[in-house]
Amino acid sequence: MPVTTMLDLPLVLLSNRGPVSFDRGTSGRTVIRGAGGLVSALSGLAEHLDDAVWVCGAATEEDTVVASEAEGGSILVQTSPSPHVVVGEPDGPAIRVRLVITDPGAYADFYSVWSNPILWFVQHGLYGRALSPVITQAEHDAFENGYAAVNQVYAEAVADEVHARGGKALVLLQDYHFYLVAERVRELCPDVVLTHFVHIPWPSPDEWRVLPTGIRERLLRGLMGSDVVGFHTRRYARNFVLCAQELLGLDVDLDNLEITIGNRTVRARYYPISVDTAALEATLTTEEVAAHVAILRYAFLDGDRQLVLRVDRTDPSKNVVRGFLAFGTLLDQHPELVGKVSFLALMQPSRTDVPEYADYIALIGAVVAEINARHTKDGQQPIDLRMAEDFALAVAAYSICDVIMVNALADGMNLVTKEVAVVNRRGGVLTLSENAGAHEELGEYAVTLHPFDVQQMADALYEALTMPVEERYRRLAAAAEQVRTHDLSRWLGEQMDDLTRLSGLF
Amino acid sequence: MPVTTMLDLPLVLLSNRGPVSFDRGTSGRTVIRGAGGLVSALSGLAEHLDDAVWVCGAATEEDTVVASEAEGGSILVQTSPSPHVVVGEPDGPAIRVRLVITDPGAYADFYSVWSNPILWFVQHGLYGRALSPVITQAEHDAFENGYAAVNQVYAEAVADEVHARGGKALVLLQDYHFYLVAERVRELCPDVVLTHFVHIPWPSPDEWRVLPTGIRERLLRGLMGSDVVGFHTRRYARNFVLCAQELLGLDVDLDNLEITIGNRTVRARYYPISVDTAALEATLTTEEVAAHVAILRYAFLDGDRQLVLRVDRTDPSKNVVRGFLAFGTLLDQHPELVGKVSFLALMQPSRTDVPEYADYIALIGAVVAEINARHTKDGQQPIDLRMAEDFALAVAAYSICDVIMVNALADGMNLVTKEVAVVNRRGGVLTLSENAGAHEELGEYAVTLHPFDVQQMADALYEALTMPVEERYRRLAAAAEQVRTHDLSRWLGEQMDDLTRLSGLF
Repeated sequence: MPVTTMLDLPLVLLSNRGPVSFDRGTSGRTVIRGAGGLVSALSGLAEHLDDAVWVCGAATEEDTVVASEAEGGSILVQTSPSPHVVVGEPDGPAIRVRLVITDPGAYADFYSVWSNPILWFVQHGLYGRALSPVITQAEHDAFENGYAAVNQVYAEAVADEVHARGGKALVLLQDYHFYLVAERVRELCPDVVLTHFVHIPWPSPDEWRVLPTGIRERLLRGLMGSDVVGFHTRRYARNFVLCAQELLGLDVDLDNLEITIGNRTVRARYYPISVDTAALEATLTTEEVAAHVAILRYAFLDGDRQLVLRVDRTDPSKNVVRGFLAFGTLLDQHPELVGKVSFLALMQPSRTDVPEYADYIALIGAVVAEINARHTKDGQQPIDLRMAEDFALAVAAYSICDVIMVNALADGMNLVTKEVAVVNRRGGVLTLSENAGAHEELGEYAVTLHPFDVQQMADALYEALTMPVEERYRRLAAAAEQVRTHDLSRWLGEQMDDLTRLSGLF
Repeated sequence: MPVTTMLDLPLVLLSNRGPVSFDRGTSGRTVIRGAGGLVSALSGLAEHLDDAVWVCGAATEEDTVVASEAEGGSILVQTSPSPHVVVGEPDGPAIRVRLVITDPGAYADFYSVWSNPILWFVQHGLYGRALSPVITQAEHDAFENGYAAVNQVYAEAVADEVHARGGKALVLLQDYHFYLVAERVRELCPDVVLTHFVHIPWPSPDEWRVLPTGIRERLLRGLMGSDVVGFHTRRYARNFVLCAQELLGLDVDLDNLEITIGNRTVRARYYPISVDTAALEATLTTEEVAAHVAILRYAFLDGDRQLVLRVDRTDPSKNVVRGFLAFGTLLDQHPELVGKVSFLALMQPSRTDVPEYADYIALIGAVVAEINARHTKDGQQPIDLRMAEDFALAVAAYSICDVIMVNALADGMNLVTKEVAVVNRRGGVLTLSENAGAHEELGEYAVTLHPFDVQQMADALYEALTMPVEERYRRLAAAAEQVRTHDLSRWLGEQMDDLTRLSGLF
């Protein structure tokens, strides 16, 4: 990995969920590796550096036991061939991890009141402002005793690790759980080089005005402790700079996306996150995927039939309901497609303890039933809705779909689009929301969806399904090339390159 | 009026509702003068100019008869002493009016689908985007055959009046009903000097993304036909320039709020609208108001009791529900105020044919009942909710309230605040939303409300109710001075001054 030699500084990472977690079974303690692209990318970085530590939350009961045994310090976990806690020297790649224990009540306020849903809702524009949010003393208390308190604990853990390395380190903070950490770490360790990466959308100042003045200002000032605040797209980075100007009254340079605070410069930058293309291609060749492909072909693709696919969490931001309404409109307006086109929706139920999410699942079911009742032909239902999480099944479906639908209201990046671009083998057409981060990169190869406009989405699906085959393959190849040449390691590499370039300026 | 001599150009005004309307009773045709500050201000302007015409919609059956008799031309209406249509020369102030007839179906789509609620909802940030809006073919058709078609008819009427004046005129277009008019008028009459004034908030680009791409671009391009686009506040003007940059890709100068389109410059300017202070003071001295004052004093102000007031339409943007929740929280947390403080709410039912508005009224009733049930003491209900429109009653209440609550989620200006500042005689405290346009001007004299934060609003009410008397009178006097020196004629005068200054540049 070319990124490992940058800056010549020790590395301190922070994210809410870490690279490993612990469980206790009948045969003793086991190590579970974290899932997802971000963990893979950052693990790769941490494994290859001489001196790196990953600060994260103790997520399981056994994590808490491990953290207690370490007495607040870090442990070394060898990640392969078989993951285990190392005593002495590892004989394979290893990651140093510091598991942070926080008060369960404070963590609940931090995670289940503020991070999700409040910050998530604000940043994805999900509040119907006529009636929500209603900020009461309970929310103020949850901010103070939850979000702020937990951020404080994590900031001290990060600072502790920086101090253990002589006070100089590269600090990489991740996501919306930790907006107050950078400022505090900088107070405690003025010599750090600090990047905070935000993985979800950053909306305009008006959207942030939904939060109490004092709280939104603290969140923004917290981030100003960074040298670089990273986003997926230029639009988010620009919105962040506009927030600094309009909500904090700071001097900004909108063209260069820079903010002046005191004698420091905070830079907003954008690095579109991506997928691990090699890992994806490897998954595609597994027997499990092949078996799924055979079954899916039989179910959806005999003769000249076509398949529309979506793979999403059941989050209102994903815009599942309007997506089905658009498909229903397509069948209404093009009856020749009834019986010819199926819509497979692989949905992962999400945050079902939040009322808005539970209601949203019910509405999805209602809309699907209505459309299936209207358009079932020869016993064939047009929509196959599956509530399940199965990555092998998803990859199989990616590889053979004719159209992938990504119509999010707002989406930091949306990796499904990039995954399909890499593994689809059928000239699959990307239909992609203008409000998904991926649209800045892949919009020119996609059919753009307007997420609030059901008629436009129906028209776009029709365009995709009837696109000449050569054009389909041409666009898919171009999108795949874009993703392959801008994969996950490049996402990290560009950040490291920028930090190296900028580090003379800090 | 100093504004009448500017520019030496004939004047063509456009607004949806005009300065006069016609009715037919048993004694024949009658003339009804339009209500409201805007009509007064622009009528004053039109009456004093040698050559002015006001284009507006035929609103009543009799308007349509009058318009038909005029065969598409204009009529001259003497406005005092007794309003009547003039044949020959008027012997008093008169306004030339052109009543425009449009197809009723097109008008319904223009007014009841697009202007209200869609544009109103977008510009006040009222959509809960998870589920609304859902733009279908019906909304696209209503835009094309309603909003765009009606705008075209009005643009042609305006252009017709400009051509009748030799092709050169000052054209003043009003509000969100006519975003497509300026561009068309400029095509037809390249030599006009054209201002479009937007009376409601202008939100950030992200909020406009709720509308279909093609439609939002057409609305913005429509406005680009103006020389000046006027708003109430700097924030709205800035958002407009950001929209031109982000949504249309035009070159802009954010510091000077200017947009370059082709070889023209479009200037965003802000002129905070105000009230007619003399008319208000006159109303305050009427017997009707005095009678109301006596009754209100008896009902709400015996002994050391205090009165909180709000006067609003029942529009979700006014944030009535959270306002009552905040008052309930105040009484929960300060039981010593129960029985000492009343909340009089004078509400005008509004747009009750729109489901969201009808539901909102029901919710207001529910919240009031709940709080009154919880806090009624000695037979005294804390909240007196009156669904009625009575300007004399409102002015009476303005004059004697201890606190006026204006907690709108979003509000172009909010004139209630300014009216209270002028007529209150009790050291009334302005509690004012940071999202009301009036906050840019009067925020320093007010107690700021954060409209989503019920606890903060409860605290703000407490601060207002317990503010030392001298401080109350000091702030009120300063606010009143600000309004008196920035009244309605100044609003219009500054626009005229700017146009005179800029006209060399057009």
